[in-house]
Amino acid sequence: MRRLKILKTNHLSCVLLIAMTLTGLATNRADANRRTEHFTLKNGMEVVVIPDHRAPVVTHMVWYRVGSADEKPGRSGIAHFLEHLMFKGTEKIARGAFSKIISRNGGQDNAFTSHDTTAYYQRVAKDRLPLVMEMESDRMTNLKLYDEDVLTERDVIIEERRSRVDNNPQSILNEEMLSALYQTHPYGIPVIGWKHEMAQLTRQYAFEFYNNFYAPNNAILVVAGDVAADEVRKLAEKYYEPIPRRAEVKRSIRSIEPPHRAARRVELIDPRAGKPLFERLYLVPSYTTAKGGEAEAIQLLVKIMASGATSRLYKKLVVEDKKASSIGGWYTGTAVDSGRLGIYAIASDGVEMTDLEDGIDVVLEDIKSNGVTEEELERAKSGFLADFVYGNDSQTSMARRYGWGLITGQKISDIEERPARVSKVSASDIQDAAKKFLDRKRSVTGTLVADGSKKKQADKRKLAPSKS
Amino acid sequence: MRRLKILKTNHLSCVLLIAMTLTGLATNRADANRRTEHFTLKNGMEVVVIPDHRAPVVTHMVWYRVGSADEKPGRSGIAHFLEHLMFKGTEKIARGAFSKIISRNGGQDNAFTSHDTTAYYQRVAKDRLPLVMEMESDRMTNLKLYDEDVLTERDVIIEERRSRVDNNPQSILNEEMLSALYQTHPYGIPVIGWKHEMAQLTRQYAFEFYNNFYAPNNAILVVAGDVAADEVRKLAEKYYEPIPRRAEVKRSIRSIEPPHRAARRVELIDPRAGKPLFERLYLVPSYTTAKGGEAEAIQLLVKIMASGATSRLYKKLVVEDKKASSIGGWYTGTAVDSGRLGIYAIASDGVEMTDLEDGIDVVLEDIKSNGVTEEELERAKSGFLADFVYGNDSQTSMARRYGWGLITGQKISDIEERPARVSKVSASDIQDAAKKFLDRKRSVTGTLVADGSKKKQADKRKLAPSKS
Repeated sequence: MRRLKILKTNHLSCVLLIAMTLTGLATNRADANRRTEHFTLKNGMEVVVIPDHRAPVVTHMVWYRVGSADEKPGRSGIAHFLEHLMFKGTEKIARGAFSKIISRNGGQDNAFTSHDTTAYYQRVAKDRLPLVMEMESDRMTNLKLYDEDVLTERDVIIEERRSRVDNNPQSILNEEMLSALYQTHPYGIPVIGWKHEMAQLTRQYAFEFYNNFYAPNNAILVVAGDVAADEVRKLAEKYYEPIPRRAEVKRSIRSIEPPHRAARRVELIDPRAGKPLFERLYLVPSYTTAKGGEAEAIQLLVKIMASGATSRLYKKLVVEDKKASSIGGWYTGTAVDSGRLGIYAIASDGVEMTDLEDGIDVVLEDIKSNGVTEEELERAKSGFLADFVYGNDSQTSMARRYGWGLITGQKISDIEERPARVSKVSASDIQDAAKKFLDRKRSVTGTLVADGSKKKQADKRKLAPSKS
Repeated sequence: MRRLKILKTNHLSCVLLIAMTLTGLATNRADANRRTEHFTLKNGMEVVVIPDHRAPVVTHMVWYRVGSADEKPGRSGIAHFLEHLMFKGTEKIARGAFSKIISRNGGQDNAFTSHDTTAYYQRVAKDRLPLVMEMESDRMTNLKLYDEDVLTERDVIIEERRSRVDNNPQSILNEEMLSALYQTHPYGIPVIGWKHEMAQLTRQYAFEFYNNFYAPNNAILVVAGDVAADEVRKLAEKYYEPIPRRAEVKRSIRSIEPPHRAARRVELIDPRAGKPLFERLYLVPSYTTAKGGEAEAIQLLVKIMASGATSRLYKKLVVEDKKASSIGGWYTGTAVDSGRLGIYAIASDGVEMTDLEDGIDVVLEDIKSNGVTEEELERAKSGFLADFVYGNDSQTSMARRYGWGLITGQKISDIEERPARVSKVSASDIQDAAKKFLDRKRSVTGTLVADGSKKKQADKRKLAPSKS
């Protein structure tokens, strides 16, 4: 831990120095140890190598340019279901043995599915890299599925949905809000799937998805760790390049959102809810879709507005007015299509939800009308840069940063020049972003309360005279 | 007109008598002049003949089992666009001549597209029936399109959208509410299409849709008028039967709605709006999807609750409390998938929207808690039967009733036995329907106001102290 901490400090000073003296130069490129290599195999598979020699380990990830937003109508959850099934085996790898082999070799492995991608990764000692490349390339084309494994695994994902979503009112609220935010784009459909559709998923659907999208020319290999680019290239040529390119692999056509014209609300009443929860989502650009500098401005806007105890919302709603016991916000900017800006707050005891919401809107309107201060801007930039640089210390987070960036349509330079771009954002850029993107017409406001009985009682009071 | 009026009266008494004495017998079957014939050609095309000998005219309709809910993602509006293009011509029919020929023969023609169907119809003198059958069967397979006609017509549908939807705040509200009501089902996408997708529609997409869905085994021919079933059969065999059946024509897979768990709201502010408008939509079963008797109960519930000056909502909100200047409701029960129950109200001057909404909810809660009276039930049934029987007097409405019924998956008997089924609904069936289906979790509440300035001013008032 101590060693890592020292590295953190060094990287931070290094990058800040660069940012101050060589604005515009990719901060990451400046660190020779971190020079990433990016090349493409003959079959169209992209490869990114991120050297990291601090420990003799490697992180190996394969990212497919397909996620749940590419599913056919009625088959929600198939991307995530296939992700689970990919661990079942091939001709060479016995049923259910994939993770056991990795574990027996001292490594860890896992996978995840999002709207835009499905990715598989292993973290192993560097001498095991050939082994994981052999295994991962094998299951890119040779997946073998037994009917009973498919049925069992379908129960597993349905149970996963039950425990993660259906048992959790806040997850339900999020699911409902996403569904209300998007009028037609598939980001409104949950990655895990709608339960009734998950129950209909089959081996055939999984193979259809696999055959349509799992191909080297639809994948990106990211290797971070104690390995040189040349070694990775040789191994990739050996294990991945023999897999033939498949003609015409591309994402499904996704509906584009029409203009949003009306503010939306979702009101969830769930007896399992804790304190009353307020959430708001705004549909905003992503780093991939934003016009120059707008995504960076949104990133800093969220920091100033909603991140931590020095944020506008926290100071006003938690400290000053005591309307909220906690408050925060976030920006999801890494996406093929739109991004999202989110705000959440938990109401203090006895505070009405409408009162909390009005209080939040006052703070937002203030930023739109009067902008942010230079001091806030500088603090937000420092915070962003620190986060970015701290990320460099984790091999996994580095691998993920490049994987996410490339898979959502950014270039290596976009990823590496982000700190320099963020440092260029001005206070008026942030005010402009607030005016443009904190637009209720492009938002959903959600509330979660444990019971609606107060309203019911009010209705009953009214009911009595209406019958007299 | 006089003659029609006499017929109306006769039919009404006839049907009411039947309903009272022979409950369960299809009321319509009892009218020998109205006995419908239903048969299928060798190529799979269904035919319905509804004799109506009051005047020497016929209504000829061809219904395709495809609508905008069967469009591919990203191609919204293609069903309606193709409907327009179907008037462009074939090898035999010159460019743009279709409607001119009908008109020159003294007839009228038109077409319409919905989520579930696209239908083409002509009303002509009976001796012109062979002509329209020849023309309609011709364009079922021989559509011919010139690029410039396609581009011009695309401008036409975009203009249609502009004038019908984008220039009309109430239409915008409806579009937004439908989009919010459906989480995943394509009924949430406007039939006319999203403008940005309409602008991308091409000749190729239109032909793809045409080739996929316009086939005799995916169509229903409905002929109502002064013609015998045998004549229609002979003509159909001559004009439609030679068109070969196409293998595997079926509707697209449509996403099924997940359970609805949270009430939704859409708040539209539009300076073009008139008086403040309140709307609510509930997702309910259709006649096709409802369990026995539930759709009929919903039909009567809406009548009692929201139809006309004797309805609960009108009496309470317009007459008694004067919170609304008008109020009403409707049930869309004819659909392949879900139906919708709608309520709308215009606020009286100076009445707050929340006050109006609370007043409406009190009336709804009262019906859920205390049910309806026998008197209300009988009045609603009489009203329904009268509407049904009056419908028999219009050749077009008869043709549409059978076309709509069959195209959405009902049987002839379902259509004809509806009055008998409605007459069986009890007051407790209606209360059960109210309890089950007036469920805010399955609803969207929409509001349309000309400006949100009152709220803005309130925000500004709050803003001042927050900065001190």
